Parts: sequence; structure tokens; C-alpha cells
Amino acid sequence: MIRPRMADVAARAGVSEKTVSNLLNGYPHISEATRHKVESAIAELGYRPNLGARNMGRGRTGFIAFAVPSLGNPHFAELAGRVIHAAKQHHWTVLIEETGGEETSEDELVRALPYVVDGVILHPESLTMTDIEERGRDTPIVLLGERGLERVADRVVADNISAAAEMTEHLLDTGRRRIATVGIRADAELQASRFRDEGVRRALERRGIDYPDELQIEIPDYSRASGAAAARALADLDPRPDAVLCFNAGVAAGMLSGLHELDIRVPRDLAVAGFDDVDEAEFMAPPLTTIAWDIEGIAESAVRLLAERYDDPSLPTRDVTVTHALRIRASTAASPGWA
Amino acid sequence: MIRPRMADVAARAGVSEKTVSNLLNGYPHISEATRHKVESAIAELGYRPNLGARNMGRGRTGFIAFAVPSLGNPHFAELAGRVIHAAKQHHWTVLIEETGGEETSEDELVRALPYVVDGVILHPESLTMTDIEERGRDTPIVLLGERGLERVADRVVADNISAAAEMTEHLLDTGRRRIATVGIRADAELQASRFRDEGVRRALERRGIDYPDELQIEIPDYSRASGAAAARALADLDPRPDAVLCFNAGVAAGMLSGLHELDIRVPRDLAVAGFDDVDEAEFMAPPLTTIAWDIEGIAESAVRLLAERYDDPSLPTRDVTVTHALRIRASTAASPGWA
Repeated sequence: MIRPRMADVAARAGVSEKTVSNLLNGYPHISEATRHKVESAIAELGYRPNLGARNMGRGRTGFIAFAVPSLGNPHFAELAGRVIHAAKQHHWTVLIEETGGEETSEDELVRALPYVVDGVILHPESLTMTDIEERGRDTPIVLLGERGLERVADRVVADNISAAAEMTEHLLDTGRRRIATVGIRADAELQASRFRDEGVRRALERRGIDYPDELQIEIPDYSRASGAAAARALADLDPRPDAVLCFNAGVAAGMLSGLHELDIRVPRDLAVAGFDDVDEAEFMAPPLTTIAWDIEGIAESAVRLLAERYDDPSLPTRDVTVTHALRIRASTAASPGWA
Repeated sequence: MIRPRMADVAARAGVSEKTVSNLLNGYPHISEATRHKVESAIAELGYRPNLGARNMGRGRTGFIAFAVPSLGNPHFAELAGRVIHAAKQHHWTVLIEETGGEETSEDELVRALPYVVDGVILHPESLTMTDIEERGRDTPIVLLGERGLERVADRVVADNISAAAEMTEHLLDTGRRRIATVGIRADAELQASRFRDEGVRRALERRGIDYPDELQIEIPDYSRASGAAAARALADLDPRPDAVLCFNAGVAAGMLSGLHELDIRVPRDLAVAGFDDVDEAEFMAPPLTTIAWDIEGIAESAVRLLAERYDDPSLPTRDVTVTHALRIRASTAASPGWA
């Protein structure tokens, strides 16, 4: 049997192909009578459109992939929601892939997806720049990355060094002098923590304040459990730090929970700050001082860069830098009589 | 120009169609030499597969949709990750749709998606059962719903009445007698809060304890901000309750934050409990007593029901009930000398 086409459905229903296409694409402004005619024709003919049929002429699939380490990280979950929204403006549907930050998953994704999507937005954790450069020749890739790194694809970049330095200066301005940090220190090429660490180091150096190894607490992952474990490590230091900057909001949440259990009061005994202004940050106990990225701007820029690259592969590689802001809340308030 | 087919690619590369298909589907165990031959053939022919081409014979698209109110709710973000994982076992790729719990979005989704996906897993917030029943005739739908409701499609159901009753009994067992609840009381047909409320009511009745209107605090949405506002409402009650059950973990987080700001101590002055054992619950300050659903079981059951329905539309409608467990943590610990 010959597979029925959209034109057959339109003819049977007595409407234009455009109307059939509108219905298939879920446009709301179609009368019930028309909808009924088209749906009947579809049912009678057994019509089944190809995915992305609307763009078949161009070879456009209508899909892009958004690859993140984990949706369990609220920063990425929120970002995924914004990417889905931004992609709709470009008539793209988003496939979300959780890579777990593992090299194999990311590599498989970058190898396989060019065949089913029009482009990939990737938050790389494990791939090397060479991997990405090789794969990026075949399909548009936009990286969510870091300003300091080599530029091999279009990128939406954060300035983690400046953000960390600003946060450190805020802690110094509220009278803290013994500032600890909690983050991943592994040598992965793309870890944002490398740049956050560098920002802290520079700000402390400018004020002539020490940043000894014992105040650089290393954790295996960005989980709340690791943050809680780091609280216990901090409590054992002698003398204790008077402030701690956690390189992620989940770690800061675990830190606050761990300190609460140890009866160490925040901010009186210890100021706590984080990165990423996820929804929960404002409602921690106490509310968390953190770095807020322009999440909507990240999503919109990433999708726009991908669309422009898709339309013109010969464009020079571009960077869009995302803005950030310091959100000062109770977790770093100066204690009475300080500063 | 005639569009090249997979067979053309296989012939050009000197491999089987199966090998081409494997490469397109991202299978890892393909030698570099073979990969090179196939990729060269694809590039030379300008081959571009249809999405889901592997199942074209059956009309299978290879996609399912998972529709949730919001990825900003960590319960749904975690569930989305599990659904993506479970769907892979059935060779399905998941399209995530955020409906915002709005009727228009959900209705458009249920109308439009049958044409591009093999099925829909829907957490309905606003659609009526009649809407779902009508739309479900054309495409497999699995609902994540509530045991008490009318059965119009395959469902993965929670027993919120029992869960809420068990939590209430736990609060009574730790000596609390004036128990408040915080949730949405609007008359939406599918609100889980209706059933959670009923469970509390039954447990209190069994013990002959009052549940006056003033202890049933109504909030406009399940946000942390609403939880914090509810804390202020609780603080104004005279006499104050000695326990509060929040109908969602985000609301409980906001409640803890609001109580912290008001200097009301948990659990000494007020016990706090929630629903949904999201990752952050264990790391709240103090850690939250809550109801843990079997999230992995929900995801696997939903995808399995969808697969079985897809294979055999004539199956009778089925329910799978999800198990739950009480996670008792510090937020409801009995105060010294109590109970």
C-alpha cells in the first residue's frame, strides 16, 4: 500500500495542506468543524506524518538535543525548562539527554545525534575540546562553558573568575578573614570549579590574605551529601574558618544542613555562600547568598547561536558572555559589632 | 534528486543495513574502520535518515512525550530523569513538555502529540477525565494519578489518602495534638491535595482529634514562597499548632525557611513534615520527615504500561499502585519529655 501523504489528507478533508499542517503542529485556532474533518480524513487514510515533515524539504528534523550532566541538579533542571521554551520560538522540540558527566555518554551523544537532530547544546563535563572540535564539524554544537577555555565551537560562557572574586570581596567586606572553599579539584579540563578557585585566590591575594591548602576542601561530587560531609571537615579545623564559599548551591544546602546538625550558627559563627541562584537558595535556612546567572539569557543565547550556526555553517565561531549578579542574603550577614 | 535511502548508504559503504542502522542509533561497538566507511558514504550521498526510520514499517516514531507541570519542581525533574532512563530500555526517546499545569497546554499536547509520538505519559493538573478519555482513543496515554479517581486510561496511581493518614499518625505518636496542613484547596478535580487532606481528616477522626478550618491553610501554588508565607500565617494562630504537614516538599522547604526567620524552632516549637522525598529533603535544616514514593517504580511502570498499550490497544485499562514509605527525620523528632 502506498503511504498516504499530507496532500491526500487535505484533499479528503476538503481543506488546504496548510490547515492539515497547522492541526498536526497543534495550533489552537482551528474550528471544531475543520478539526473534525481533518481528523476523520487522517483516520480514514491511516495517515501518519513523518516527524518534522514540515521541514522535510530542507532536511530539517525539527529537533535539537540539550545534554546536561543531571536533571537532579536544580540549576540544570531550571535551565532545561528555559531551553525548551526558547527552542519553541525557533520551532524546535528539545530532546533532553542526561549524560551523568560521563565521557562515554557525551561522546556517544555527540557521535549519534547529528543524524537525528539539527544541533546540540552541550554542557560538557568530560569531553575534551578535541573531541568536540572533531564532532562539531558535522553538526552545529553550542557549548555552555567557560571564558578561559579554548574556543572550538559557539559558546555561551560564564565568567566564573570574576564572579568568585566578587563573592570573596563581599565576604571580606563583611569582616571575614579566614575564608574556606568547597569544590571539586580534580583535573578535569572543563570544571567550573577551577575558575571559581582562581577567582577566590586572586581576590584574597589582592588583599594580602592567606588561602592555605587546609581551607580548600575537596569533595568528590556536587551533591548535598558532599556539602554536609564538608561541614564536618570544616568543624574539625583549628582555628575554624569564619566563612565558606561552596562552588554550587546543592553543596551549600548540604553545608547548611551539616552545620545545623553540628549546632554551628550561620551567619554568626560562620558565613556561608554559594553559586547558582536556584529557587531553593532563597528559602534555605538561612537564605543563601549566591551568584545568580541570567538563566533565561543562557537559554535564549544558546538556542539563537545554534539557529544562526544551523542557517550559516560558515559563520566565525562566537562567544556570548552571560551576566551574573551577587544575591546577598542572610547567610552572609555581618554579625553585630563586626566589620 | 531522489532522496537516498539507508540501503544506498549500506551498498556504498559495503556493509549491511543493520550496521548503518546501528551507527545511526549510536551503538558503541562499531569499529573505527566501519564507522569511517559508513560516515563517508553518508556524507557522499547526503543521506539524512527520517527520525525513527528504524521503525518506519510499523509506523512507530520512536518518541514518547512526558508532560509535567514544571521541571522547577524537583520531584518532577527527578521523575523526568527516571522516565528518560526507563524509556531507553524500550528504545524510546522522551520529549519533555512543561505544561505549567494549564489546561490549554495540556489540551494542546494531548491533541497534537499523537501525530508525532507513540504515546504520552501525563501528570494531569487541569484536564478533566472526559478530555483525557476522548483524546486517549487515538493514542496510548498513561496517567500519573490518584487511586480515588475514575479510571479512563492506564494509570500509575499513588495512595495519597493512606500516605497522609500514616504521616498524621506519626505526628500523633510523637505527642502532637494540634496538627495544621498547608496545601492547595481549589476544586481542581485531580489535585493530590484533596486526597492528602482526606487522609489527615480520617486519621484525626479515628483518634477523636479536631481539625478546625483555621488549621487548614490554603496556598495558591506549591512554591517555596507559598510555604514561607504559610509559616507567617501559622505564627499568627492562637494557640499555635504543634505540627504542620505540608503537602509538598517545596512548601515544606519554604515553611522551614519562614519559621527560621520567625525564630520558631523545629521540631521543638513545631514539628514539620512534607510529601515527596526529593534529594533536598534529607539536607534541609533540620532534615525533613516526608513521604517517599518509589520514583523509579513510577517511571518504569508508566513506560511499561505505555509499551503494552502500544502493542495491544485492546487491553483492558489497568492501574499500577506505587508504594510509599514514611521517612522519619529530625524535623518531627519528639521533644524531650514528650509523648
